[in-house]
Amino acid sequence: MSLTTDTPVTRRSLSPLRINRDRLLHRLDQLAQVGAIEGGGVCRLALTDADKAGRDLVVSWMEALGLTITIDQLGNVVGTRPGLEAGPPVMTGSHIDTVATGGRYDGNLGVLAGLEVIETLNEQNIQTRYPLAVAFFTNEEGARFHPDMMGSWVFSGGLSVEAALAEVGTDGTTVAENLDRIGYAGPVPCGSQPVKAFVELHVEQGPVLEREGIQIGAVTGVQGMSWQEFTVKGVSNHAGTTPMALRHDAGYGASAIAVAARQLAQKMGGNQVATVGSIQLKPGLVNVIAKEAKLTVDLRNTDSDLLKQAEAELQTQIEAIATAEGLEVTAQSLARFEPVSFDAAMIDAVERTAQALGCSVKRMPSGAGHDAGMIAAIAPTAMIFVPSVNGLSHNVNEYTAPEDLENGSNVLLQVLLQLAEASDR
Amino acid sequence: MSLTTDTPVTRRSLSPLRINRDRLLHRLDQLAQVGAIEGGGVCRLALTDADKAGRDLVVSWMEALGLTITIDQLGNVVGTRPGLEAGPPVMTGSHIDTVATGGRYDGNLGVLAGLEVIETLNEQNIQTRYPLAVAFFTNEEGARFHPDMMGSWVFSGGLSVEAALAEVGTDGTTVAENLDRIGYAGPVPCGSQPVKAFVELHVEQGPVLEREGIQIGAVTGVQGMSWQEFTVKGVSNHAGTTPMALRHDAGYGASAIAVAARQLAQKMGGNQVATVGSIQLKPGLVNVIAKEAKLTVDLRNTDSDLLKQAEAELQTQIEAIATAEGLEVTAQSLARFEPVSFDAAMIDAVERTAQALGCSVKRMPSGAGHDAGMIAAIAPTAMIFVPSVNGLSHNVNEYTAPEDLENGSNVLLQVLLQLAEASDR
Repeated sequence: MSLTTDTPVTRRSLSPLRINRDRLLHRLDQLAQVGAIEGGGVCRLALTDADKAGRDLVVSWMEALGLTITIDQLGNVVGTRPGLEAGPPVMTGSHIDTVATGGRYDGNLGVLAGLEVIETLNEQNIQTRYPLAVAFFTNEEGARFHPDMMGSWVFSGGLSVEAALAEVGTDGTTVAENLDRIGYAGPVPCGSQPVKAFVELHVEQGPVLEREGIQIGAVTGVQGMSWQEFTVKGVSNHAGTTPMALRHDAGYGASAIAVAARQLAQKMGGNQVATVGSIQLKPGLVNVIAKEAKLTVDLRNTDSDLLKQAEAELQTQIEAIATAEGLEVTAQSLARFEPVSFDAAMIDAVERTAQALGCSVKRMPSGAGHDAGMIAAIAPTAMIFVPSVNGLSHNVNEYTAPEDLENGSNVLLQVLLQLAEASDR
Repeated sequence: MSLTTDTPVTRRSLSPLRINRDRLLHRLDQLAQVGAIEGGGVCRLALTDADKAGRDLVVSWMEALGLTITIDQLGNVVGTRPGLEAGPPVMTGSHIDTVATGGRYDGNLGVLAGLEVIETLNEQNIQTRYPLAVAFFTNEEGARFHPDMMGSWVFSGGLSVEAALAEVGTDGTTVAENLDRIGYAGPVPCGSQPVKAFVELHVEQGPVLEREGIQIGAVTGVQGMSWQEFTVKGVSNHAGTTPMALRHDAGYGASAIAVAARQLAQKMGGNQVATVGSIQLKPGLVNVIAKEAKLTVDLRNTDSDLLKQAEAELQTQIEAIATAEGLEVTAQSLARFEPVSFDAAMIDAVERTAQALGCSVKRMPSGAGHDAGMIAAIAPTAMIFVPSVNGLSHNVNEYTAPEDLENGSNVLLQVLLQLAEASDR
């Protein structure tokens, strides 16, 4: 299915419907109180008790809105509103899990804006030709279980449910154990739910829209991403008596790799980014040369070839560092996604709808991975971005202004109405 | 007190006494079984239950040898053998605490060789003019509580007992609490025990003696040491959406500081060493730019001015890194010791005694801090080094050959006999 240009979006062609900003903000507040942490942030790591509490709250809202709820084997939850015709739903949604020091909008906005769209349609008794669905996917963040976008990846058939269920988390427990524990191991087979089209509203999580003073981002695709963990093995020794020339210092090796990753991204330029978010040294004592170090490297680029080039150049530099210091370095891929391009007509629809609503809009790639990037494999997909103040995300200070939340939600409402062919149009 | 050259040390002037190698090895084995870890190493972090068990074993040996035992307020233990005259004892000793991944010789050798000397004298009913004492000092390693050499520093009046007792360890508990818990908070006031002379036998913990094929090191002094912890504050943010130019990455800052410390030591050359043994990132997640990092830097040099220069140059580079990345870096000194020079006549005595025993000997500085470096402030002091295989120390593979242990212990025996003026000479 693809929108055709013989249905131009103009202000006159728009539905007069608008979402209720206060109702949306109220749900965002309530969900943010589940797993709230100091500074106004949220910690609801995937499949923890806090995540269960957040899921239960959202499911209770879905039930109150009369949605038919299905839960699949990986805990992906879909609430569906029937259309005049049966068949695959036009779907929106996102995730409600967070990183350990997360904000209240990342993911949550896409799910709760979807519920707000449903409530707006219910209020006005608007029927749609095709069913509408709101989904939240399991473990989008990947902070407790690798890989991120796990739920939507399995939902779209890219990752086997068995592999995902067997994944061991940072605390040594598996996805399967935790799904059973919190009661979200559902009966619906993963990959059995076709989707007519998918639109995800999300905060940008970057500084671009705010810096350029633009209200809506029409997302053209998702950056490719490579997550690797490197284990550096050296020789533990005395920090005072071992001449510099005789050292095999795993801590130095890890630091040199982190600096090399930074310099690589700066040298490549463009939208290439490189991040070392975790470094661990053993034994980790002030007067002992480290015998082992583990570090993670997160590389991203919108261009598939440039991403491969970044991986290759980093590997070359790591080998040089290992040789010079007499270290052994092994690499493990934690997650890898190729860049994704969204559906051209869907991107047009988001852009034209935003313009018709009087919003400034910009086409842009997503620097972060999103569930939409996974669903794009099985359905025409697009995303709507709204500005993040100071570009902050994965941070308790993550913030998006109420009017931006409202604009994005109204663009979502209008695009969903077009895709589902609301009967009042 | 200082040895005078009118008592030349010659083979004829040596006592015929020799220590019992098997007895020494047996005690080393037994003590190594307390807190034994995989690979033949030992973990007896200061004032833990394992340290208590090690202390109890050594004290039981002291009692069996008829020594008079005193325990001071900081848990320093001294076992004294009376002389024909009363007065300050000629003392030997070291420490029995270890790092988390320590070996069986570091410290332990100096204490158990002292006991072996006492047992050798007891066997032959040798009396000395001055009392002889064997001591082990609390928390020499500094792996659980800063600073290292804590016990001998307080014993010699350089650090107040109150400050040491209040020190909070890596597990959040204080020195005082743990001394009470393991029953080694003694009644003897710290700093109340004068010492006539001090000699410490220790493994080199470095590669020099082995590489040059020399049996005994006559230690001329101890390297100055500077331990600092740096706290790097940045901004936590999303690893995918934050352009490189807009980052304030505390993890990158810590890594750049570690690399700068390495390059500084290499540039200065000589015996300057620099080690970053601990790096910790917050939140420490693969896809989150770190908002905070803590790292330790251990700088050592035998030259006081060069050590100051290293600290100053590192600080300059840290400021440049902080400015370039937009980070806030604060420094805390964890420990600092000026270089120490030992007593010239005592160094001569060690050198000449080793030669008279037919051992090859080399004058050398110590790259590691030692209790002798603290006691040197209150008594004429020297040290005896024996080779460490592959220079390994603070490592389960730390090893010194039995014949080297025996040679070092016989040098210790003979030097102590000279200092205490054995009545058979």
